[in-house]
Amino acid sequence: MRVVALSGGVGGAKLAYGLNQVLASDSLSIIANTGDDFIHHGLPVSPDIDTLIYTLAGLNDSDRGWGLAGETWAFMEAMGSLGGDTWFNLGDRDLAMHVLRREALDGGQPLSVFTDRIRNALQISARIFPMSDTRVSTLVETVEEGLLPFQRYFVHLKAEPQVKGFYFDGADAAKPCPGLIDAIHEAQKIVICPSNPFISIDPILGVPGIRQALVKSAAKVVAVSPIVGGEAIKGPTAKMFRELGVTPSPDAVAQKYSDFLDVMIVDQVDAGNHKLMNSFGVQTEVAQTVMRTADDKLALAELALRF
Amino acid sequence: MRVVALSGGVGGAKLAYGLNQVLASDSLSIIANTGDDFIHHGLPVSPDIDTLIYTLAGLNDSDRGWGLAGETWAFMEAMGSLGGDTWFNLGDRDLAMHVLRREALDGGQPLSVFTDRIRNALQISARIFPMSDTRVSTLVETVEEGLLPFQRYFVHLKAEPQVKGFYFDGADAAKPCPGLIDAIHEAQKIVICPSNPFISIDPILGVPGIRQALVKSAAKVVAVSPIVGGEAIKGPTAKMFRELGVTPSPDAVAQKYSDFLDVMIVDQVDAGNHKLMNSFGVQTEVAQTVMRTADDKLALAELALRF
Repeated sequence: MRVVALSGGVGGAKLAYGLNQVLASDSLSIIANTGDDFIHHGLPVSPDIDTLIYTLAGLNDSDRGWGLAGETWAFMEAMGSLGGDTWFNLGDRDLAMHVLRREALDGGQPLSVFTDRIRNALQISARIFPMSDTRVSTLVETVEEGLLPFQRYFVHLKAEPQVKGFYFDGADAAKPCPGLIDAIHEAQKIVICPSNPFISIDPILGVPGIRQALVKSAAKVVAVSPIVGGEAIKGPTAKMFRELGVTPSPDAVAQKYSDFLDVMIVDQVDAGNHKLMNSFGVQTEVAQTVMRTADDKLALAELALRF
Repeated sequence: MRVVALSGGVGGAKLAYGLNQVLASDSLSIIANTGDDFIHHGLPVSPDIDTLIYTLAGLNDSDRGWGLAGETWAFMEAMGSLGGDTWFNLGDRDLAMHVLRREALDGGQPLSVFTDRIRNALQISARIFPMSDTRVSTLVETVEEGLLPFQRYFVHLKAEPQVKGFYFDGADAAKPCPGLIDAIHEAQKIVICPSNPFISIDPILGVPGIRQALVKSAAKVVAVSPIVGGEAIKGPTAKMFRELGVTPSPDAVAQKYSDFLDVMIVDQVDAGNHKLMNSFGVQTEVAQTVMRTADDKLALAELALRF
C-alpha cells in the first residue's frame, strides 16, 4: 500500500511517526511544509522537515515537544557572549543539520536531495518530500504589526499579534519537488496530519499542482482534526480561527479541505459536533485523537489507514 | 608605550597573553597569522585568531592546549550520525565564532572588522589584526603527497609528511589589513612571539608591506625562540627545520628574521648556543622561555619589553 501524508511540525509528526511504524518499508511518503523555513545566522533552518526527521528517527524530545532529546545549548551560550542574536534557539546537536544543509545547498544540492540523504543516514524508511525545492515563505498579516515573516511572528512575537491573513511568498513560481506529484498519483491513501491548516497545510496546498493532485486523486483522503474541543493541542490554530472570525472546530478545518477531503477523524469530545462536514459529504469518524504515547500514535495511524 | 606582536596560535598566544596583561589598555596590537584559515563545513575557521581571542579572554583550555575550556562536542557527534565529515573538531561553543564569522563575511564585513567586534564583545584590550583581509592560504609542499592545503597537512595527516617548502597562495595580491602598517610604524617595541617561523610568522611576513615595515621600523624587534634545546614546545617546528636540512636552534630561527631582528630571547638550555646570531648582530638574552603558568607568561612578556 502506498500512502502519502501531508504534515507540518510537532502535531503532524506524531501521526507521521505512527504511520511510519505501522506501514511496510518504502510505502510512506511525507510531504513536509517548508513555509516556515528561514535563514538564521546564515544557516538554512527547516523546522518542520527537521521535526519530522527527528521524530521519525526517534531522536525527538517528547517532553519539551520540539528539538532533539538530550540536546545541549553551549552554542547558544557562546553566541550570547559573543554578542550574537539569541532569540531563536539552535541546539548543539541540531546545528549539525543546519550546517550540513547550508553546505549542501551552497554546493547546489536541492533541499529534497539533502533531505533524502539525511533520512537515509538516520535509517528512516519513510520518504520525506519538502513541498518544494524552491523557496516559499509564509508571511503572516497581523493587525498590530502588519506583514511579518513567519518566525518573527511565531517565535519572536510568540504568535501574539492578531492575524488577518497569510501569504505564501514565492508560491506562484514554486514547483513541487521531483517525485512528489507522482507519489500523490500513486497513493492508495492520503492522510492530512493534525497540523495547523493555515501555516502548515495551506503552504503545501499553495504550491501549484499539489492541491490539484489531491483533488484528482482516487485515493481516500483522510484528515485528523487538529482542533479538539475547540482548542488546539499545541500552537495557535484555534486562536487563528477565532481571529479570522471562525469558531474553531473540526467542521471549520474540514471546510478548508472540502474540495479533496473524504474522511475527517474527530476526537471523542467532538462527537456529534460536525454538521457542516456531513452537509458537504465528508464522512466523520470519532476516535481518540490526542497522541500521548507511542501506542496512541500507532492506533490513530491504523485507524487513518482503515478507510 | 605602543607595542606590536606577531603571533600564530597556541605558543605565540601565551606570550601575547602575557603582553596584554602587563601593558596598559590599548597599547598592544597583535598581528595574527591567517594562513591557516580555511572553510570547513562551509564555515570560515581562523585557528590562530581564535586561539588568540580565547587565550586573551582567558577562555582557552590550557590543559588540552587548544580550543575553549569546558568545550563540549555534541555538534561533532551529531555531525557523525548525519554522515558528515568529522576529521576537524569544531566544539559546540567554538561554533558560535565560526557561524558569526560566516554571517559577517557574507554580509560584506571584512575579517578585521569582525575580529575587532568579537574582541570588544569579550573585552580584550589588545587590538587583534588579521595579517590581511584578503585570503592568503598556506600550502605545504611535501615529499610524499605533493602540495597540500595546510589543514590537510596539519590536522588530517598530523604533520607527518616530510616538508620541502611552503607557499602562501594569494600573498602577492594581499594587502595588510587597515591600520596594521600604521600600528607597526607607531610601535616602540615589536615582539615576534615563539610561533612556528615557517607556518605562523612567514605567512605574516609574506603579506606585501609587513616585512618592509619591520625592516624600516626604529623600534627594537625582539623575538622569543620557539626552539628550546633543539625541539619545539609544541607542533612541528623542529621537525620542519630538520626536513629542510637545517639543525633546529635559536640561531636557525634568528637567521630567518635577520633583516629586522634586534634581540633574540633564548631559553636557559640554549645559553651559549647562538654564535650565528651574534655574527649578524642580533643581541641574545637568556631566560626561562617555557611558559607553564600565568606568571611565566607575564615574566617573559616583561623581559621582552625591557629592551
